[in-house]
Amino acid sequence: MLAGVELGGTKCICTLGTGPDDVRAQVAIPTTSPEATLAAIAAVLERWNFQALGIASFGPLDLDRASAKFGSILSTPKPGWSGTDLTSLAKDVPFAIDTDVNGAAIAEGLWGGAQGLDSWAYITIGTGVGVGSVSAGQILRGAGHSEAGHQRVPKLAGDCFEGCCVYHGDCVEGLASGPAIAARAGKDGREIAPDDDAWNHAGHAIAMLCHNLVLTTLPRRILIGGGVAIGQPQLLTAIRYHLGKSLAGYGQTERAEDLIVLPGLGERAGPCGSLALASRAAD
Amino acid sequence: MLAGVELGGTKCICTLGTGPDDVRAQVAIPTTSPEATLAAIAAVLERWNFQALGIASFGPLDLDRASAKFGSILSTPKPGWSGTDLTSLAKDVPFAIDTDVNGAAIAEGLWGGAQGLDSWAYITIGTGVGVGSVSAGQILRGAGHSEAGHQRVPKLAGDCFEGCCVYHGDCVEGLASGPAIAARAGKDGREIAPDDDAWNHAGHAIAMLCHNLVLTTLPRRILIGGGVAIGQPQLLTAIRYHLGKSLAGYGQTERAEDLIVLPGLGERAGPCGSLALASRAAD
Repeated sequence: MLAGVELGGTKCICTLGTGPDDVRAQVAIPTTSPEATLAAIAAVLERWNFQALGIASFGPLDLDRASAKFGSILSTPKPGWSGTDLTSLAKDVPFAIDTDVNGAAIAEGLWGGAQGLDSWAYITIGTGVGVGSVSAGQILRGAGHSEAGHQRVPKLAGDCFEGCCVYHGDCVEGLASGPAIAARAGKDGREIAPDDDAWNHAGHAIAMLCHNLVLTTLPRRILIGGGVAIGQPQLLTAIRYHLGKSLAGYGQTERAEDLIVLPGLGERAGPCGSLALASRAAD
Repeated sequence: MLAGVELGGTKCICTLGTGPDDVRAQVAIPTTSPEATLAAIAAVLERWNFQALGIASFGPLDLDRASAKFGSILSTPKPGWSGTDLTSLAKDVPFAIDTDVNGAAIAEGLWGGAQGLDSWAYITIGTGVGVGSVSAGQILRGAGHSEAGHQRVPKLAGDCFEGCCVYHGDCVEGLASGPAIAARAGKDGREIAPDDDAWNHAGHAIAMLCHNLVLTTLPRRILIGGGVAIGQPQLLTAIRYHLGKSLAGYGQTERAEDLIVLPGLGERAGPCGSLALASRAAD
C-alpha cells in the first residue's frame, strides 16, 4: 500500500492506493500557510497504513541528496513557502520527493503511455509549461531539476507577441501556457474558439520545444498533458504539424502521430505522480 | 594499455596509451573508402598490445545494443560509408563505440575540465556544432544519440540571416558553425576580425543552446571546444554575455564565467575521446 501527496498551488491531494486503478482513499486539503497545510496533511497520513510515501510538489525544490536543504521548497513567489521542508512528512517509511511534473512522467512510465520505454518526456501545459524527462529509466538530474518549459525557441515568422513569462518574456512558457494563449487571444481561455490562431502559435512553441527535446534528451515518446492540452485536440494537431516540418526527418524515428501523444493516464497523470514516486521509493 | 580510433571525415587517428599525458604511439590514416580505411586501421591495431579499444566516430551511428546494426554508421552523405560496420575493428578485447563529441565529453570528465562532476555538457564548434551531454555520469541515450547542435533557437532581434544548415536552415549549427560564421561575415574564417559582428551572432546562438541545456539536461559546467571556439576568446565572451542576460538568474547556480569554460584538454579533447571510451570499456 502506497501513500502520495501532491502539493499544488491551491490545493494538496493525499492519495492512498496501489495505482491509478486502485485508489482506496483521497483527501483534498486547501493550500494555505505551510504550517497549517503540512499539519493537515500529516493528520491525514497518520490515519493511513502504508509502506512508502511519495511527495510530488510545485517547485522549485532542492533535490540534491547531499544538500542540507534536501526536500525543501527553494525560493518561490508563493508567500511563506520559501524554505519549507517537506521531508518532515516522511516518517519511518521509504519516501521519494520530486516535482509534480517529474512525478507525472514516472506515473506515465509505470501505468500510462510510456510503459516499456527507456526514455520519454512528459509535458504539462497549464498555468505554466512543465517538462519531465526520463532517460535510461531515470528522471534527468544534475544541477537542479528540469525547467525545460523555459527553453528559448523561435517564434513563427512575423510574430510580435512578447510573451508573458515574468522571467523570460517569450520563452516556451511565455508563449504556450494557458495565460499566454489567453493573453494572445485577448479573451478568457474557455471562450477561445478551436480555430483561433492563438492555438497555432502555442502549438508552434511546444513543437519547437519538442524538436529540441527529440535531439537532446532523445525521448522515444512525448506525452502532452495538463489542463490546457487535454480537451483541445487542435493543439496536438498543431504541435505534430509544426514538429514534423521542423525536424525535416532529422533524428526522428517515429511519425509525429506516434511520437506526440496524450498521456495514457489523461488528467490523472498529475495526481498519480505522487503514488508513482511512492512506488519508486518502495522498490 | 588502451587503444583508440577517432574516425574523422578526412582522417582517422589511432592512439595507443593510457591517457592524454601518456600517449605511446599515434598514427594518422587518410579517410578514403571504408574498406581501405578500416583495413589500414586494423593493420595498425594488429601491431599493438592493448586491453581495451575505444572508437569515436563521425555519425550518425547506431548505438542501440539491441539493434542488428549496432556499431554501424547510419545514413551519411559521405560516399560509401552508409552502413559501414565499425565493430569489426574490435577483436577479443572490451570495446566501446560512440560519437566523436560524446567521446570528447567523456574525456573531459576523466582527464579534463569536468573531473569530479556528475553532469556536464561538451559543445564542439567546427564544421558543425556537436553536443555531448552527460547526466549522472552517463552519456545521455535514448532514441539515437545527441544531435543537440540542431536545436531551434531564437535569433537576435532583426537578424535576417537564413543560416546554412542543409536540414534546418537557421538551427544552432546553421547559425554558429564555422561555415555559418564565414557565410555571415562574407569572408574566409581566418580573415574575420575579432570584433566582427558575426562572432556576436554566433555567440548568441550558442548562448541560446546553453540556456536550453541548463534548463533541460542540467549540466554543472559546459565546456566549449572545437576548432572554431579555441583561439577566439571573443566568442566565449559573447556566449557568457548572452547566456547571463537570457537566463536572468533562472536555473543558474553558477556565474556564467564558471558555467561556460574552455575544455580542460583544449584541442586534445577530441583526439582523447577514443582513449576515454576505451577506458570506459576497460572498467
